[in-house]
Amino acid sequence: MGVKGLAAQSLPIIRAEAQVERKVGYCVIGLGRIADHFMRGVAQGSTSKITGLVSGHRDKAERIAAQYGVATSSIYSYEDMDRMRENKTIDAVYVALPNSMHAEYTIRSAKAGKHVICEKPISVTVAEAEQMIAACKAANVKLMIAYRCQYEPLHLKAVKLIRDGALGRVHTINGAFGFNSPPGEWRLTRKLAGGGSLFDVGIYVLNASRYLTGDEPVAFTSYTSTMDHDGRFDEVEENVSWALRFPPGVLATGSCSYGTTMPGYFKVFGTMGTLQMEPAFNYDGTRLLGTYFTGAKGAPPVIIDETNPEKDPKQFEREADHFTECILENKTPRSPGEEGLRDMKYMEAIYRSQAKA
Amino acid sequence: MGVKGLAAQSLPIIRAEAQVERKVGYCVIGLGRIADHFMRGVAQGSTSKITGLVSGHRDKAERIAAQYGVATSSIYSYEDMDRMRENKTIDAVYVALPNSMHAEYTIRSAKAGKHVICEKPISVTVAEAEQMIAACKAANVKLMIAYRCQYEPLHLKAVKLIRDGALGRVHTINGAFGFNSPPGEWRLTRKLAGGGSLFDVGIYVLNASRYLTGDEPVAFTSYTSTMDHDGRFDEVEENVSWALRFPPGVLATGSCSYGTTMPGYFKVFGTMGTLQMEPAFNYDGTRLLGTYFTGAKGAPPVIIDETNPEKDPKQFEREADHFTECILENKTPRSPGEEGLRDMKYMEAIYRSQAKA
Repeated sequence: MGVKGLAAQSLPIIRAEAQVERKVGYCVIGLGRIADHFMRGVAQGSTSKITGLVSGHRDKAERIAAQYGVATSSIYSYEDMDRMRENKTIDAVYVALPNSMHAEYTIRSAKAGKHVICEKPISVTVAEAEQMIAACKAANVKLMIAYRCQYEPLHLKAVKLIRDGALGRVHTINGAFGFNSPPGEWRLTRKLAGGGSLFDVGIYVLNASRYLTGDEPVAFTSYTSTMDHDGRFDEVEENVSWALRFPPGVLATGSCSYGTTMPGYFKVFGTMGTLQMEPAFNYDGTRLLGTYFTGAKGAPPVIIDETNPEKDPKQFEREADHFTECILENKTPRSPGEEGLRDMKYMEAIYRSQAKA
Repeated sequence: MGVKGLAAQSLPIIRAEAQVERKVGYCVIGLGRIADHFMRGVAQGSTSKITGLVSGHRDKAERIAAQYGVATSSIYSYEDMDRMRENKTIDAVYVALPNSMHAEYTIRSAKAGKHVICEKPISVTVAEAEQMIAACKAANVKLMIAYRCQYEPLHLKAVKLIRDGALGRVHTINGAFGFNSPPGEWRLTRKLAGGGSLFDVGIYVLNASRYLTGDEPVAFTSYTSTMDHDGRFDEVEENVSWALRFPPGVLATGSCSYGTTMPGYFKVFGTMGTLQMEPAFNYDGTRLLGTYFTGAKGAPPVIIDETNPEKDPKQFEREADHFTECILENKTPRSPGEEGLRDMKYMEAIYRSQAKA
């Protein structure tokens, strides 16, 4: 227990008051499945609270407002949400809409003077992502992309081990993530999703290869395919597999799919050992395995086998906590808009790079 | 115990005599590490025996000959090995030489009237592989490439499960294999190895993607890289990562390395579940994991977790048994020269396909 903990013990009342005053209020835009995780995450945390809702379904919004103690006056429709500018209980918005709507609602929120945490992918084009970043800068609000794995303890542990040199020099990374998508979802519609499995699940694998290496890929090659001609994939691709090259020669492969059971994993191969995570990208249950040599003569390898016992929606609580801290302390989020923009550039490069024959 | 076992119990003497008569005699060409595995595998089996040795080191050959009961008159040098034509105790040869010597010694053995089991990769060029196949055909001898995993029970079980439709339709395969190569080995010399990690370890991953799908890739893209500029990789590449496309749209990624610890694995993702093997390509200890749904309403998934308890050199015994059976019963090996030729074509395509930028 650090200084903060001791202070809390000796001054419980003052701390509780200070905490209430400092809670950051979030307006959730789009009340689908992932918004539910986010709201439950915020509710179980201590730094943030849900103070507004934007929805096309007033009934649903009122039911959720009652659940989270949101004033009915803080429920907006998509048409009138710009009025939230006057709402002092709303510090920030969480954009949980289909991909193609991220840009519009991020920019409108920024213009309303609200900080924005936006789901991944940041947008559906590089141009949109650049407009979002510019709008948030012009409005002097923060923009964070909700890369929840970048706030998950075992992912952070993997990154730290690699940065500390536990694996020696990393040469190769493999990974995949996918699921068998039910028909009729917005993610299968080009107009709403902007892309297929790469935008939705492949992005986790791509993003992981970047934070695991701590580097940026410079070369891209890929194949996409659709095998299930059952109407689900008339507009977006089903499968993508790619290879990337990072400047020092690190090679990374990735696969994603909307047509198969594809438990998320990554494997990192270095000169002194390996790290792997599986499940890697679920809402909970992440497990990190590792075997590496320290280089000390005759020393046995270090073995890692750790499962994160935290349950969903802890990852959402963590990302909300981080953004709240950035807002309160005027810091740049660890995964700012520029991080989302980079993945958009790389995903466009992966699509463009489709190898011939 | 089946009919064969019962017969053996009731007629032990006749069976033993029959067995001795039917043992196929192998001359081992090249007495390095892998030859040692093969000879021990043959020795512990019941269908084959070591009846000749070819080596540049007479002392070493005599020591090994004593160990396996090989007549000193059946020890040859590389120069005079063509004399084995007259040696009736030698039915077949096992070519365990550096890659670049596979073609010459396979062709000379065929001309000496001996069947040939040759280590992978079949050769160092497609042209050589074609000459080897033609030479064996002309001499009316069999040619098998020693893809030991194609004779390993858990690999065969994985293939059978996939063929039987347990995973539904396979969409994606990932895999890797590599190790941190010590300096000074023949495999780091272009003249002897012909290629780098792809020829030596990547070939396992490539070959697995083919027997797991039961299909042939038609499109290839890749990156190669060398990160360790310590003299080991002045002639051959250190790392390769690739993506393949199979005709129906199955995508496969693979990675290999001579610079990292890279435990061999494969993962197969299908519409109804997944199969993975790790370790996959070692001499023993293979472990197969699987989770798949049968499609029966409400039925829980089938879970597979099986480790092959057999110890090295059982895989070598199995491949020798198979080739012996092919010789005795005049059958085509499951991994004939043509199988090696296909991998050579694909590996040349992977090297050629290196993506720009």
